[in-house]
Amino acid sequence: MAGAQGRFFEDFRLGEEIRHATPRTVTEADRALTIALTGSRFPLHSADTFARALGLERAPLDDWLTFNIVFGKTVPDISLNAVANLGYAEGRFSGFVYPGDTLSARSTVIGLREASAGDSGIVYVRSEGLNQRGETVLSYVRWVLVQKRDAGAAAPSPQVPELPKAVPAGALEPTHLDLSGYDFELAGSVERFGDYPVGRRIAHPSGMTVEEACHMTATRLYQNTARVHFDQHRMATSRFKRRLVYGGHVISLARALSFDGLANACRILAINGGRHVAPCFAGDTVYAWSEVLDRAELGAHAGALRLRTVAVKNRESADFPDRGPDGAYDPSIILDLDYWALMPA
Amino acid sequence: MAGAQGRFFEDFRLGEEIRHATPRTVTEADRALTIALTGSRFPLHSADTFARALGLERAPLDDWLTFNIVFGKTVPDISLNAVANLGYAEGRFSGFVYPGDTLSARSTVIGLREASAGDSGIVYVRSEGLNQRGETVLSYVRWVLVQKRDAGAAAPSPQVPELPKAVPAGALEPTHLDLSGYDFELAGSVERFGDYPVGRRIAHPSGMTVEEACHMTATRLYQNTARVHFDQHRMATSRFKRRLVYGGHVISLARALSFDGLANACRILAINGGRHVAPCFAGDTVYAWSEVLDRAELGAHAGALRLRTVAVKNRESADFPDRGPDGAYDPSIILDLDYWALMPA
Amino acid sequence: MAGAQGRFFEDFRLGEEIRHATPRTVTEADRALTIALTGSRFPLHSADTFARALGLERAPLDDWLTFNIVFGKTVPDISLNAVANLGYAEGRFSGFVYPGDTLSARSTVIGLREASAGDSGIVYVRSEGLNQRGETVLSYVRWVLVQKRDAGAAAPSPQVPELPKAVPAGALEPTHLDLSGYDFELAGSVERFGDYPVGRRIAHPSGMTVEEACHMTATRLYQNTARVHFDQHRMATSRFKRRLVYGGHVISLARALSFDGLANACRILAINGGRHVAPCFAGDTVYAWSEVLDRAELGAHAGALRLRTVAVKNRESADFPDRGPDGAYDPSIILDLDYWALMPA
Repeated sequence: MAGAQGRFFEDFRLGEEIRHATPRTVTEADRALTIALTGSRFPLHSADTFARALGLERAPLDDWLTFNIVFGKTVPDISLNAVANLGYAEGRFSGFVYPGDTLSARSTVIGLREASAGDSGIVYVRSEGLNQRGETVLSYVRWVLVQKRDAGAAAPSPQVPELPKAVPAGALEPTHLDLSGYDFELAGSVERFGDYPVGRRIAHPSGMTVEEACHMTATRLYQNTARVHFDQHRMATSRFKRRLVYGGHVISLARALSFDGLANACRILAINGGRHVAPCFAGDTVYAWSEVLDRAELGAHAGALRLRTVAVKNRESADFPDRGPDGAYDPSIILDLDYWALMPA
Repeated sequence: MAGAQGRFFEDFRLGEEIRHATPRTVTEADRALTIALTGSRFPLHSADTFARALGLERAPLDDWLTFNIVFGKTVPDISLNAVANLGYAEGRFSGFVYPGDTLSARSTVIGLREASAGDSGIVYVRSEGLNQRGETVLSYVRWVLVQKRDAGAAAPSPQVPELPKAVPAGALEPTHLDLSGYDFELAGSVERFGDYPVGRRIAHPSGMTVEEACHMTATRLYQNTARVHFDQHRMATSRFKRRLVYGGHVISLARALSFDGLANACRILAINGGRHVAPCFAGDTVYAWSEVLDRAELGAHAGALRLRTVAVKNRESADFPDRGPDGAYDPSIILDLDYWALMPA
Repeated sequence: MAGAQGRFFEDFRLGEEIRHATPRTVTEADRALTIALTGSRFPLHSADTFARALGLERAPLDDWLTFNIVFGKTVPDISLNAVANLGYAEGRFSGFVYPGDTLSARSTVIGLREASAGDSGIVYVRSEGLNQRGETVLSYVRWVLVQKRDAGAAAPSPQVPELPKAVPAGALEPTHLDLSGYDFELAGSVERFGDYPVGRRIAHPSGMTVEEACHMTATRLYQNTARVHFDQHRMATSRFKRRLVYGGHVISLARALSFDGLANACRILAINGGRHVAPCFAGDTVYAWSEVLDRAELGAHAGALRLRTVAVKNRESADFPDRGPDGAYDPSIILDLDYWALMPA
């Protein structure tokens, strides 16, 4: 526990395990609110009937909802004093989360490196989401730049974990979904695994304008306490002048927008990496495009697509705004996410 | 399935049956969100105890919620490229929708007529909402003006369905509600069927200001994908400059406002017709008034009222703004809805 | 029943019992919406597992949610024509409210006093919230200044009830919670009953900016019909020019903010008094601080803290803005609430 003021860089110890507070029983209401706040239409998460046809007892909850709730629990201990959320790696969704499950979270400090300026440092944690039976439903690494309480405090010797660029296809968790009876028409698209060669780019056509009430409601639903999302009085004197939209809400919006073009990417399997490239504010309209980076067959009826989804703001995505030859991001880009998704074959 | 860009006028074939995507399991959360987004107080939809006293197992979901969810499913196939939603007819609610039911939708093309300008055409569809047992819970006709992809494309010979001005009273579905034990005090009004002669007008006293976050949240809850409701970046260059509030949300608001004056109009039985007369935008305050158009006894304890509910914006409804002698609508009017509602006698 | 225009001062009779309309079945969705609209993190209301460890079958609903729903039911009969909500006293929460329970409400008029100006009067009511078994889950007194319909109407002889300054510690309801196994780490704070001496002040560090969509959604969820919260068209010509945030939403926000500093104040036991000192509007950022006024042991593992929580707007609470020596409130203060809360020992 970090207390109400949160931890600073010098409060973290390598190898330390942190048990996060605020267990949360998730319910059908989290499903409905996810739909109401993002417009998601993925049928596996929308209809019990669709889930049953794939061998589940009922519709599981949205994968990014699980991520956002688990992430939210880590905030008071890990990132209340974070300057920036720098990256993600080695994320794995395992098993499904159902209404009635209770999620809790814990993190292990796997790396620490003081920043050269000496006023902050990078904290690497592996965070896990657990259900009420103690089963891990999500595990991921993230690293954040955290302020020091005292710039003069001694820093530990740098320890940076080795992190893979992507979760190997062979290491993807089995999903236990029987996709042989997948109803493409009911899902809304006939496109299947074979229709997505490596290199294919998809411009998702719709856009979603973000309102203060919407991103705050989503972020509170996740019990995420980072003040930058909620407190206009304080943010008015920040360099942004405004509240920041929680990056996980941008991920959820990009996922919902990606339905048009990736309707049958029915489950997130793994997070390879991700970067919140630029801030998103209320009033911004979010668009997205995706690219197939890799593919892996998963039995007769399924395949995994390694996808890169790029979210942009205030310009449409039809021409695929991207990094330039110098590696610099187009100024419209707010999110660059690399993940594996399941697709019926 | 229409693909992410939707169908154009020349993509529709007379008699064609379209099975819509995105089945949706509705739950208690849809009830709570309906209340939270509209302020509805009709007790049949608010309390299990009230519903049980009328012979149901529990409280069914709001009728217009069913309508809006079914309507939402039809949008990607029918009206993504619609210029205008022109009208409704022959709507019938049959049976109740309960938490746990899964709704899906299908439509049949029952009429096609190219517009005289040649760049668009009117598509008439009968849409049905089905539960997980394949039972029809709602059926209605609507017609929309849809753009042509290619103005030069050949049009089919005009086929316009015959549609009744109203569902005949004798054709109303039985509701299987036992209204003999209806608790008027608990419902909030002593007014019953006998208190509503034909011609009675009711000015509903309250108003509701619409916020962007509220109408977008409602419309996403219905998984309605029409971009005009969500994308300020694109709408900024439209003739409206702003996002449009989904007409079904206006219907839901008018229904909630109508509680004060029609508290015991406990169930929508049929939709005779409806017109979204003018757009509604965030910042507008919606008021409503109603008029009794017709009445029909339904056994000893119940009657059906044919009601016209008119929603206006940014002016109160006490003086019943209406069409003028020339048939032109008062500029404050945004909705003109004609329906049958059940009322205890 | 009061009709759509509400009751005026001369419509109330001493001793009269009013049965309020709109029973409401509360569900998991009310829990999720409470979290989404306030950011509450109290674990007893967040996780079934946490509640079971304290001997309950599942997580009960938030106490102020119960208060706000019960309060909402009283509005059409008591305060639709209220000029001001003046105070609360003798509030007691008894038993827990669980998802699936149906709440209804009734009030008894216990005092009436015409105001000296003769155009309004103070109505004192004891309101009770009942579950579907007729058990009282909440009882409280409030008094409101209500307009007269006719300033010349005769007023009853003044009857002002005797009200205690606080609920005596000995009169607090047993909570039937077994706090011996309370998990402080999972709750998020090690601070327990012994850490809160009388006089301790806690500045809750976070702030929450209120949006129109958020306070309206919360207030509609409670089916509170007071027009000042919803109708910008009418409010534009009021002295406030804007919609007023419902005071009960401010209480809920202050409670959620108080988590940082009072994380283990796990249950509201009683309401001693409360005053909505100044209005809150959309755009305001709410902060809060609390003070321990009194303490009472409740067996070996629990204690009751009498707390004063003060909510302020648009300034942080670190320096405890308060009443001045002349008794006048600091202009930032919007709420001054006095209540008993349960705390593990």
